[in-house]
Amino acid sequence: MTTTMKRWALSGAGRDNLKLVDAEIPTPGSNEILIKVAAASLNYRDKLLVDSGFGLPDPLIEPVSPLSDLSGTVVAIGAGVTRFGKDDRVISTFIPGWIDGRGFGTARDPNSRYLGSPLQGALAEYIVLHEDWAVRAPSKLNDIQSSTLSCAGLTAWTALVERGNIRAGEIVVVLGTGGVSIFGLQIALMHGAQVIVVSGDDKKLARAKELGAHHGINRKKEDWVEAVYRLTNDYGADHILETIGGAHLDKSLNATAVGGRISLIGVIDGFEISGGFSPFGRKRVVVEGIQVGHRRSLEELVAAYDLTGIIPVVDATYKMADFVAALDHLERGPFGKIVVEVG
Amino acid sequence: MTTTMKRWALSGAGRDNLKLVDAEIPTPGSNEILIKVAAASLNYRDKLLVDSGFGLPDPLIEPVSPLSDLSGTVVAIGAGVTRFGKDDRVISTFIPGWIDGRGFGTARDPNSRYLGSPLQGALAEYIVLHEDWAVRAPSKLNDIQSSTLSCAGLTAWTALVERGNIRAGEIVVVLGTGGVSIFGLQIALMHGAQVIVVSGDDKKLARAKELGAHHGINRKKEDWVEAVYRLTNDYGADHILETIGGAHLDKSLNATAVGGRISLIGVIDGFEISGGFSPFGRKRVVVEGIQVGHRRSLEELVAAYDLTGIIPVVDATYKMADFVAALDHLERGPFGKIVVEVG
Amino acid sequence: MTTTMKRWALSGAGRDNLKLVDAEIPTPGSNEILIKVAAASLNYRDKLLVDSGFGLPDPLIEPVSPLSDLSGTVVAIGAGVTRFGKDDRVISTFIPGWIDGRGFGTARDPNSRYLGSPLQGALAEYIVLHEDWAVRAPSKLNDIQSSTLSCAGLTAWTALVERGNIRAGEIVVVLGTGGVSIFGLQIALMHGAQVIVVSGDDKKLARAKELGAHHGINRKKEDWVEAVYRLTNDYGADHILETIGGAHLDKSLNATAVGGRISLIGVIDGFEISGGFSPFGRKRVVVEGIQVGHRRSLEELVAAYDLTGIIPVVDATYKMADFVAALDHLERGPFGKIVVEVG
Amino acid sequence: MTTTMKRWALSGAGRDNLKLVDAEIPTPGSNEILIKVAAASLNYRDKLLVDSGFGLPDPLIEPVSPLSDLSGTVVAIGAGVTRFGKDDRVISTFIPGWIDGRGFGTARDPNSRYLGSPLQGALAEYIVLHEDWAVRAPSKLNDIQSSTLSCAGLTAWTALVERGNIRAGEIVVVLGTGGVSIFGLQIALMHGAQVIVVSGDDKKLARAKELGAHHGINRKKEDWVEAVYRLTNDYGADHILETIGGAHLDKSLNATAVGGRISLIGVIDGFEISGGFSPFGRKRVVVEGIQVGHRRSLEELVAAYDLTGIIPVVDATYKMADFVAALDHLERGPFGKIVVEVG
Repeated sequence: MTTTMKRWALSGAGRDNLKLVDAEIPTPGSNEILIKVAAASLNYRDKLLVDSGFGLPDPLIEPVSPLSDLSGTVVAIGAGVTRFGKDDRVISTFIPGWIDGRGFGTARDPNSRYLGSPLQGALAEYIVLHEDWAVRAPSKLNDIQSSTLSCAGLTAWTALVERGNIRAGEIVVVLGTGGVSIFGLQIALMHGAQVIVVSGDDKKLARAKELGAHHGINRKKEDWVEAVYRLTNDYGADHILETIGGAHLDKSLNATAVGGRISLIGVIDGFEISGGFSPFGRKRVVVEGIQVGHRRSLEELVAAYDLTGIIPVVDATYKMADFVAALDHLERGPFGKIVVEVG
Repeated sequence: MTTTMKRWALSGAGRDNLKLVDAEIPTPGSNEILIKVAAASLNYRDKLLVDSGFGLPDPLIEPVSPLSDLSGTVVAIGAGVTRFGKDDRVISTFIPGWIDGRGFGTARDPNSRYLGSPLQGALAEYIVLHEDWAVRAPSKLNDIQSSTLSCAGLTAWTALVERGNIRAGEIVVVLGTGGVSIFGLQIALMHGAQVIVVSGDDKKLARAKELGAHHGINRKKEDWVEAVYRLTNDYGADHILETIGGAHLDKSLNATAVGGRISLIGVIDGFEISGGFSPFGRKRVVVEGIQVGHRRSLEELVAAYDLTGIIPVVDATYKMADFVAALDHLERGPFGKIVVEVG
Repeated sequence: MTTTMKRWALSGAGRDNLKLVDAEIPTPGSNEILIKVAAASLNYRDKLLVDSGFGLPDPLIEPVSPLSDLSGTVVAIGAGVTRFGKDDRVISTFIPGWIDGRGFGTARDPNSRYLGSPLQGALAEYIVLHEDWAVRAPSKLNDIQSSTLSCAGLTAWTALVERGNIRAGEIVVVLGTGGVSIFGLQIALMHGAQVIVVSGDDKKLARAKELGAHHGINRKKEDWVEAVYRLTNDYGADHILETIGGAHLDKSLNATAVGGRISLIGVIDGFEISGGFSPFGRKRVVVEGIQVGHRRSLEELVAAYDLTGIIPVVDATYKMADFVAALDHLERGPFGKIVVEVG
Repeated sequence: MTTTMKRWALSGAGRDNLKLVDAEIPTPGSNEILIKVAAASLNYRDKLLVDSGFGLPDPLIEPVSPLSDLSGTVVAIGAGVTRFGKDDRVISTFIPGWIDGRGFGTARDPNSRYLGSPLQGALAEYIVLHEDWAVRAPSKLNDIQSSTLSCAGLTAWTALVERGNIRAGEIVVVLGTGGVSIFGLQIALMHGAQVIVVSGDDKKLARAKELGAHHGINRKKEDWVEAVYRLTNDYGADHILETIGGAHLDKSLNATAVGGRISLIGVIDGFEISGGFSPFGRKRVVVEGIQVGHRRSLEELVAAYDLTGIIPVVDATYKMADFVAALDHLERGPFGKIVVEVG
């Protein structure tokens, strides 16, 4: 067996600092597994990381392989491993070590120890993970599809299911058609909910309807909040996946039903949120930050996709060498997920 | 029995429009009760209403008696009343008709039909309420004390107990020493929690400690968020009663523990909230609007005070004729509640 | 308009005491609505009531019309009615006055004031209900289908959704193919769950699979608990609708997953439940009694059926005059619901 | 440092098989800590284990040290340990490895891997535990007091707080005055609840009242269910700690309030539970099995005792050599906990 592999290494902010390099294949220690990576999927966070350095360790001791989400096959196991054996297909967890429940970290130092920075990430032909940091891949999804669940899929699941207790007949609004939004669409439909997709692109709205969305609102053609009122007979939305953030939160606050929930996820509109007080005081709106989710939820998400037979939406796949093109695609705005075929 | 009474009537924004007038004693209709009001307590909302007209019906058809919270005695009942009999001591509910569960209203038109505007309020010698809009007064509290529970007490209860599921050993931060904050202090202590009071006034902090507060932070002498870190060994606060609101929310976001809750209640810093995204993304903070609460919670609050024997804190009482002085006191910042003796 | 109508009247235990009689059409009082009944559906409780007198008022002052579940049209409204107008299609609530939340009653005297005893029930051409005791009928279901939701449909919804927070990928076991079980099947499928149906009849199992059941177990051919272990890779069931009760509970306890829930609903095996302790101590099983549900849940159920387009399963319909034949059918064991066409 | 220690070893069912023996002091491996045990407390399970062999591994490969609950001091750490350092005071967790959330095990093979069987238990001068299996001891409690929390204390906390969301003003019934019941009393009082203690011994009832119990019922002098009705004005109990079990469950079902909870804990009346259906159907009672609890809850319990300053009730302490006398005391029925001083 060869002892070297390719990996993408980011040595600082900016694409100039991103290189495809040769590296040693790592060796699994106690309770660790060596995974031959098949595919890795991109999230908006990865773009921020590469382009702005946001989330990079400071100082950066050694170049980091970006990306947190992977599918692959266990090719070697370290001493004491009990969760997996050789040849098992696995996917990664986004927040290593968060198994269930409340998790860890303090008010001053919250946990942000994720794969893909500060920990070595998925864009490498091989990766070593603690056995607790992986779960079995869905048996009904191929490697490319499987690689999309760890962050975007789990974020939507945590927002709607683990925290939101979504139920049939409820009204869900997703903003845009990126990874989290399309997972939100699928997961909401899985639970019998009514889904309204807001986008500035009629073609994307048409694709969302093909996937089962009940309504599409073109936010460039009408005020989307008013449209939600119209489509729901003034009731509003029980759940909103706020993937834009910033000052856009104000619109979501207005669109929310009495007692409804906004899952705060995205920072496209910036790192400072703002909005009116009135929806809090008169509608008892809940705004909850979603930090991807824990391993138990990821296992439930895998089971849900395996049972329902729904297929995650992959907009495009790129070869390992073409990671920069994949980043460009992400920047243009995908419909669903973008995946790099690693192995 | 006399057929006329005194009531305060507000005919528009501004104290010039506030007058103590004579009025007919109302007659209870079907399922209604006539209450001889003993005491009525003030909330910050009442000050806003009188001084800025915020929350007044527009147009204002007839002058409204301010104040939502009252204690009194049932002196007559209408046809079909089953919940109360003559001579029963009662207190009012803030949101008429919200018995339990989700309540009513839409995204476009949330419910804001409260006593004291647009509905006739408590500052009258007699008031007629639907029997569903009142609950039995606490047997251990006198009329003045009983009149403080309906809005400020229930708001703190809803935030910490009904929605927050507070438990012993948790850490609660209350901001200032107004009505909701001091109720928050008492209710948190009732549940074995640790309470940190933030204030700009050492004398008030000393009084809070006499009531059982574990720690006081003088926000004029140190950064209160850093002080919360210090006092909690960086853990942060499980619950914060955000009675200031506006841009101050950012501080509360930083002070919150991983997975902690901020109950958004106050508008002292304005009607536009803002804050950083990071606490949402890295600590999964929940910000929830508190709209006082429902009748079932108010009944639980009454039971809790009756059982524990704790006494709500009344900073001062005023005679009916001195309502304007009571408003002035509220404006200066009370320690606990201000009550008008009506009857 | 005619002033008399037909109704079925039960004057005591036993079918001899059941008669189709003429009666005055009632007049709606304040806040009441007069409904022309279109259809009424049967529940196992109705059979117990007629055949054993179980649940009849004692003493029985006047003969009672059986059945709690109806669909119909508002034909007149009393003073003060705001929820409905003439010609609105409505269905009844099973527990009059339970709007949301905790409800009423004491440990010594729990509430059992239901339609169809002790209150006048649905098997009459006209019925007067308080406007709070009805909800709008589903717009996508006809009268016969709509009449099935109030008790059996809501019981399954309360068990799985309101109390059970069912989610996609979970495993649900329903016992038999009566009304609650088939609603449980549909509602679980609506939420993306996996459904296992246990029955002693292969034909019914085949029909359940046509409706989407993932697995059928013929309990006469194998131990159903072992079969659940086999089908779930030993995991067990997240939710069991225990519609048999009595000593059969022991089997459900054994079939339940770690942390799973049993909704205790039925009394086919008697009014004394029993089972082993070990599943409680080692699997933390929850056994929860389901008392149909409140009005807010019924409104959600209506919305869920209207959105998903799923049609409740009606095994057979009978004419008003043939109510006794409908009871016989119920006794033989229906597949889904049995409905009487009243109007 | 010496290399041998004393431990109690059980080689089969019956006290004849219980011996105080010499053994090697174990050595901590990777991620393990060596604890010098200071104190170990007894639970009813330990009595069952020794006297009946219930819960012993079958076959029993090597004699097991009984008891699950200990306090002690870390005297050595293995490689990679990060949670503790030398000289840290710790207590054990009852269910090793259950950190938070749902936990593990299947319907067919639930987890029952506890300290004190099948795992080596606390009745030894030294014990090696994985660092994940211990938490910091309360700083305000001495070793004897600290040793009581792991099983009895946590069971009461899980029942009332983690699962029961107890709140001020609620009504709690505890049965008898054993370890779980007295912890239930203290934890309920900590949360402002009203506590009713049921016992057959007036002296124990008097001691319970000294601890703050609101009411005592002597079950030998009156029907305790009727007494609960009387004391609560028919309302019933929001929470019952059912530490007797078996057919006694029926009484608890009758005593429970509408929507109340029974935490099923004990097997004094046998391993087969039974009771009437009616409280489930008419009061929506929840019966939930309590399997001690997870580590996050134990940490909360420690924090709650440290904050409130309440002291667990230790009825008697015994020397290591007198473990059999401690078992005898347990059999007679303690008031609170019995502890063995090990170190």
